[in-house]
Amino acid sequence: MAHYDLIVVGSGPGGYEAAHKAGQLGKTVLVIEKDALGGVCTNWGCIPTKSLLNSAKLYEHALHSQAKGVITTGVSFDLAAAMKWKQDTIDTLQKGIAYLMKSSDVDVLFGEAIGNRDGSITVDGISYTGEAIIIATGSSSAMIPIEGAQLDHVVTSTEILSVERLPEHLAVIGGGVIGVEFAALFSTLGVKVSVIEMTDEIIPMADKEIAKLLRREMKSVDFYLSARVVKIDEKHVFFIDKDGKERTVESDLVLMSTGRMPNTALAEQLGVFIDRRAVVVDDVLKTNIPNVYAIGDVNGKSLLAHSASRMAEVAVNNLYGDTSQRMRYDAIPWAVYTQPEVAGCGLSESEALRRGYNVKCASRQMRSNGRFLAENGKKASGLCTVVVDGETRVILGIQMIGPYASEMIHAAAVIIESELRVDEIAEVVFPHPSVSEVVKETILSLK
Amino acid sequence: MAHYDLIVVGSGPGGYEAAHKAGQLGKTVLVIEKDALGGVCTNWGCIPTKSLLNSAKLYEHALHSQAKGVITTGVSFDLAAAMKWKQDTIDTLQKGIAYLMKSSDVDVLFGEAIGNRDGSITVDGISYTGEAIIIATGSSSAMIPIEGAQLDHVVTSTEILSVERLPEHLAVIGGGVIGVEFAALFSTLGVKVSVIEMTDEIIPMADKEIAKLLRREMKSVDFYLSARVVKIDEKHVFFIDKDGKERTVESDLVLMSTGRMPNTALAEQLGVFIDRRAVVVDDVLKTNIPNVYAIGDVNGKSLLAHSASRMAEVAVNNLYGDTSQRMRYDAIPWAVYTQPEVAGCGLSESEALRRGYNVKCASRQMRSNGRFLAENGKKASGLCTVVVDGETRVILGIQMIGPYASEMIHAAAVIIESELRVDEIAEVVFPHPSVSEVVKETILSLK
Repeated sequence: MAHYDLIVVGSGPGGYEAAHKAGQLGKTVLVIEKDALGGVCTNWGCIPTKSLLNSAKLYEHALHSQAKGVITTGVSFDLAAAMKWKQDTIDTLQKGIAYLMKSSDVDVLFGEAIGNRDGSITVDGISYTGEAIIIATGSSSAMIPIEGAQLDHVVTSTEILSVERLPEHLAVIGGGVIGVEFAALFSTLGVKVSVIEMTDEIIPMADKEIAKLLRREMKSVDFYLSARVVKIDEKHVFFIDKDGKERTVESDLVLMSTGRMPNTALAEQLGVFIDRRAVVVDDVLKTNIPNVYAIGDVNGKSLLAHSASRMAEVAVNNLYGDTSQRMRYDAIPWAVYTQPEVAGCGLSESEALRRGYNVKCASRQMRSNGRFLAENGKKASGLCTVVVDGETRVILGIQMIGPYASEMIHAAAVIIESELRVDEIAEVVFPHPSVSEVVKETILSLK
Repeated sequence: MAHYDLIVVGSGPGGYEAAHKAGQLGKTVLVIEKDALGGVCTNWGCIPTKSLLNSAKLYEHALHSQAKGVITTGVSFDLAAAMKWKQDTIDTLQKGIAYLMKSSDVDVLFGEAIGNRDGSITVDGISYTGEAIIIATGSSSAMIPIEGAQLDHVVTSTEILSVERLPEHLAVIGGGVIGVEFAALFSTLGVKVSVIEMTDEIIPMADKEIAKLLRREMKSVDFYLSARVVKIDEKHVFFIDKDGKERTVESDLVLMSTGRMPNTALAEQLGVFIDRRAVVVDDVLKTNIPNVYAIGDVNGKSLLAHSASRMAEVAVNNLYGDTSQRMRYDAIPWAVYTQPEVAGCGLSESEALRRGYNVKCASRQMRSNGRFLAENGKKASGLCTVVVDGETRVILGIQMIGPYASEMIHAAAVIIESELRVDEIAEVVFPHPSVSEVVKETILSLK
């Protein structure tokens, strides 16, 4: 029976990062992957969606840039080419991960990992043992059990990434990040899109004002909030709207984006404690079983690729000597790659109030920002909001809707993680002309 | 004779910011502007160039996005439309500044300010006195005195912003930021562009490696380095190349982008001390005359719009009570809006070595970054470099070439101004997938 210092199950952004780091430390490491290197993020999540959303953005720009001087006589979208570009991106990244594993002497094994009660793991009838195990098995799309959910044209975010032709009407069930990004993608490509969301607003972690602005900017999408889907048939989705009225939307393709469920099978086989359908971990990602850690979506703490990578760092550091690091969840950025983009980091106003802070808030329109205007015009909307602790003047949260939000938000992570104060940011010089200036202006307005 | 608490001469990003801030503090303020509100930045600098560069970027995307699925026919560039969009942006921002002045009760006077030895300032024969004066008169394009420089087709960055038709051959004399941005703009629009630079590399503040990458990415531009222009005629620019050989390039338009000279006339009239053609100021922007400050390009310290705005904050704070702030120049970001963009903040490796630091450096290609690949493909180049103090592990400088650099670099300003260390950034979570991840990876490689 092959023995390793560390067995990592799952090669997503948590798993491959953990394996690579441990390998670099000279440990013998085995990674077990049941499907494709990179996991959901690389193959059916972050990467393919961003590739296609970028294609859609370029398509929209090609269609609508006359006022800025770009004239075209014909613009069309070649879905097969966009899909090929997406696949090339995935292939390149997969190769990169394979190379990373090789360069840090990590063994990679493809197959389904079965956990045994003695702590060993079996793949295709062969068992492996590890001094330590990191469970990084990720999550899967959750399906809601409604009539018609099993129909062929009802898909998850995985299958929809391989459609070969555009539908006429797409119905998106669930207005979280995944649902909204696909709604943006398909509506930009000319598909009539309806989003049906159970709660009273899309993008739950966004400030209501920002989520509302996003809905307003996604003009061609019909949003139904506080709406409950009851049935799907070949051509329609039936739902109860916010007023209790029965409604239908047409749809020849239905995306079920109603959340994700941790893949806990392996953890359960190993006897790890599960609560509320996720593996229970402490702040260094330890489970109840000695030397068994669980990182990424499977522990349900923060279902984001970069959270998983950070958990990998904390878990491996903890395993191999640096026990000073703890997983913190208050400065993890998030981004929605719609047009405009939405991003945030830290506490929202309501969360800060709930935690008892003496909250001070400010928000600024981007409309007076030079670069924003130069690139988007005065009718475009963009907004930045900042939440501050009124006592210490430490910045607790930053959110924004506008261009480049996804590439600006890491600065918010630096600010919030470092507990910087309003007066400290006041002395930082931001580049002109850049949309980022609005962040400083919003913070300055709290001075 | 009208008397004010503060007279500000010049309404660029230094002047209008100073006037606005003082007005908000309840001071009586007069701003004198000889031309247009917003100064060079708004009218003939940052803003119009970024507007046109954005149009050029959209044009290039419309031409070359087939591999990503965007098929176009009949793509052409409508220069008049792009110019109109640019002018609309300027008009909107000018109105914004006018509104800002009004909202903070600042008087605005248009005309040329003449300084008098008694400290008063005369405009159109009427004199004004101020308890304090802020000189924010900016700078002008420097012309090098060579044969042919007076010809009609030899222009500065001001006139070139109003060309009504594209030239066939543009020769750019000077490969600094201004020259390179115009080279990028015109070459993207199909003009054959030559850049003739006196030193051995373009973009003086950039790391050599980054500047070289930018030249490589600007494939259609001919760069002549270590080259000295000797003569211009109706159709050519004559220069001595790096090997001492006489050469010519064709050009029906010549851009003279050979630096900028502080506008010191007013300062001289007021009797302010000038050295090396710039107004001498201390670290709170005071000149040798009590209550006379000089901010922005006129003091020659840092010829950037955002430096001027920061100087405005420091000068006004110092004038009206908060004497704790000092002008620092080590964490001022800069950006070049080419494709790809280039940006930096803090010390370059050579500057850090010159100052005696035990320098540690790292650089990372962007090629393994998911978003970079998804949007640019594996042949595109992008690079991030980081300079660290080997003793304290404080991050001293960050530079990058790649998409979104101009919107990412404010995070570097936060990091460097706050003197954050490698180990602190190691615990910050950066969003995935974003190009910004490369910054963390580069820093981590110094761990």
